[in-house]
Amino acid sequence: MAERARVTPLRREPPPRTPSRESLPAEPLWREVLGERLRALRLQQQETLGQTAGRAGVSPQYLSEIERGRKEPSSEMIAALAGALGTTLTGLTEQVAGDLRRQQGAATSRAHGPVALALAA
Amino acid sequence: MAERARVTPLRREPPPRTPSRESLPAEPLWREVLGERLRALRLQQQETLGQTAGRAGVSPQYLSEIERGRKEPSSEMIAALAGALGTTLTGLTEQVAGDLRRQQGAATSRAHGPVALALAA
Repeated sequence: MAERARVTPLRREPPPRTPSRESLPAEPLWREVLGERLRALRLQQQETLGQTAGRAGVSPQYLSEIERGRKEPSSEMIAALAGALGTTLTGLTEQVAGDLRRQQGAATSRAHGPVALALAA
Repeated sequence: MAERARVTPLRREPPPRTPSRESLPAEPLWREVLGERLRALRLQQQETLGQTAGRAGVSPQYLSEIERGRKEPSSEMIAALAGALGTTLTGLTEQVAGDLRRQQGAATSRAHGPVALALAA
């Protein structure tokens, strides 16, 4: 894919500014975490795909693809879905940030479990 | 645009689940706040568009459009840009959430200034 990071060092790269990410498990993609959170909000409100999609002005099939992280929703669509689910872009982004932080924490403790526990002790 | 929210009530809508948003100023779009944050991170590191774009594998022109909220970056691109700026999707999303929250606070106090001050007193 043309959009993936393509690091072709033509000259010396600056030193990494964060702790080596090689040791950390890969992060999920934005659309994946966003989709999961949208699905969680919809289920929390006990709504069908059709109900939420109807208020956001999209097809249930399209919403389903967004929820599964298969489609990249536009910023306008994200705003419409937030509104349809009774929240705002601010609220939604905060929730996604929290989900990412929790997933990162869980993945890190899986990857470094006994070491992390030993260090914490 | 086909993706804009198109609310065509065919039956009675459920009551709003959040305080009326009509009284609040409109939120910015995800790509706008994201673009501004990416630009702030790049400038903080005193980098040119070309330097950051080079590490992320995109053209400086494309990065400039993303920074100005004109292009909708894919999730892969967001991850690449976060990495090129020495952060992660988690860190970036948390910063965007904070920016949105601050903008909302500022907009609300502009809209309700004297009332908010009176209530806070």
